[in-house]
Amino acid sequence: MQTAQHAQLALLLEVAGTPKPGNVDRHRDFDDLRFEHFLAGAVGACDGLEAAAAGEPVGASFDTAVEGMSQQRGGNAQFGALLLLVPLVRAAATWGLTPDDTAAVVEATSVDDAAGFYRAFEHVDVFVDEPPADAEALDVRRGADAIPAVRERAMTLYDVMELSAPEDGVAAEWVNGFRRTFAVTGTISDGDGPVPDRVAEAFLELLADEPDTMVAKQHGEAVAESVRERAAALRHADRDEREAFADELVERGVNPGTTADITAAATFVALERDGVVP
Amino acid sequence: MQTAQHAQLALLLEVAGTPKPGNVDRHRDFDDLRFEHFLAGAVGACDGLEAAAAGEPVGASFDTAVEGMSQQRGGNAQFGALLLLVPLVRAAATWGLTPDDTAAVVEATSVDDAAGFYRAFEHVDVFVDEPPADAEALDVRRGADAIPAVRERAMTLYDVMELSAPEDGVAAEWVNGFRRTFAVTGTISDGDGPVPDRVAEAFLELLADEPDTMVAKQHGEAVAESVRERAAALRHADRDEREAFADELVERGVNPGTTADITAAATFVALERDGVVP
Repeated sequence: MQTAQHAQLALLLEVAGTPKPGNVDRHRDFDDLRFEHFLAGAVGACDGLEAAAAGEPVGASFDTAVEGMSQQRGGNAQFGALLLLVPLVRAAATWGLTPDDTAAVVEATSVDDAAGFYRAFEHVDVFVDEPPADAEALDVRRGADAIPAVRERAMTLYDVMELSAPEDGVAAEWVNGFRRTFAVTGTISDGDGPVPDRVAEAFLELLADEPDTMVAKQHGEAVAESVRERAAALRHADRDEREAFADELVERGVNPGTTADITAAATFVALERDGVVP
Repeated sequence: MQTAQHAQLALLLEVAGTPKPGNVDRHRDFDDLRFEHFLAGAVGACDGLEAAAAGEPVGASFDTAVEGMSQQRGGNAQFGALLLLVPLVRAAATWGLTPDDTAAVVEATSVDDAAGFYRAFEHVDVFVDEPPADAEALDVRRGADAIPAVRERAMTLYDVMELSAPEDGVAAEWVNGFRRTFAVTGTISDGDGPVPDRVAEAFLELLADEPDTMVAKQHGEAVAESVRERAAALRHADRDEREAFADELVERGVNPGTTADITAAATFVALERDGVVP
């Protein structure tokens, strides 16, 4: 299987993994964003993932991937996951799938890559925070309209991620060498049992480790920390308790989506680097 | 979304549709063949589906699709579905996705296409019947070893399908203009509600309509007919009764896999011809 196909399969295995508390999974849907939207999103993202594997620029590849992912009726299924997968695919297909090589890929991004990132917001509604007062011109919700400000300030995509990193767990991966992605990969690669079960285990491990930044943005840091604590307590609980927590979070509309994004990225590393085969 | 991607998404939506009595679906696995094997099968089949869309020969495209599909640990997930999808993709990408054009594609197959079909059996174990006494040399279980006999008799892939059509519902589609595939597509295209629910409805409609030939091969015609009758009775039953029947068939190891194959083919037609978007 080629690199882009591993990325596509990672998106599918991520959404199949269950229970993944607060996320769409094999057994849970949200009202408007359902399992089949993730299936269509993974298929649609293919062209962008293949572009990244072929050495196309990160920003343009991401824009293409998001455009394809959004060709379904559920809205934003995999924006954050693709923002992690595109540089990982690029690293795997060019240099190597190591933290250092991935860091080199993201550090080499350009102002054009940043423009591609902003264009990607034209395809789909992504939940984001208000920008800091001094960064209003760079508000991602402005989409392509923000590109002149990005160019004027000569910001690369790495620079944009650096600005967001303190509040955004996906951006934080970009600036810390994909630390959490590579750290949790072993749970998927070295585990036994069906691969989606290992993916769900990796998700819970990440959720127990740090508060989810999407939950923090949508519900506040106290809720994010309480979810983290509950996840930590569930690490050694039985499946029924995990299922109950998953149901509860979906009912409350508490969606640790950033943790799912990093889980998808780690699943890709397990498939591509470690040769995991479902 | 391109034609090959529609075929890939059709495979994913087919396995996601639930309940599909006796088949792996979003909520059911077999012991050795699980949901994730269908996900990996759909991703792996991509190269062969793209070859068909690019106008490569049907037999070689099918061989490539099956080789890719089989790169997972579950065994045969989608052999029959691919045998329907490859000519449909070829028709869609060249002439048109109509019964006549699809019939023209399969009638135009060659002896080389037949050789590709036999080679595909090298990649995966497929459940098949004993061949008739006068056709032992053409037994598909011989894989590529049967190719000299195929060439000696100058059999095209269409000829091979014609031989199998009386006992095999997939081969029957080849020789009857994909009649059942096109007939059930409207259930998916014209329905409302989530697409996987419409896919499950189409499956039940097909199952109620004719005995499944895989069930007939594995358990006898009486079992196949009783499954058909139960499915017909369930057309107007509530979801709980359908779920119970799905559980029962999985427990009994009764797998109407041919019906699932035709369901995947119809899902492709709904996506590609009718513009259905999940």
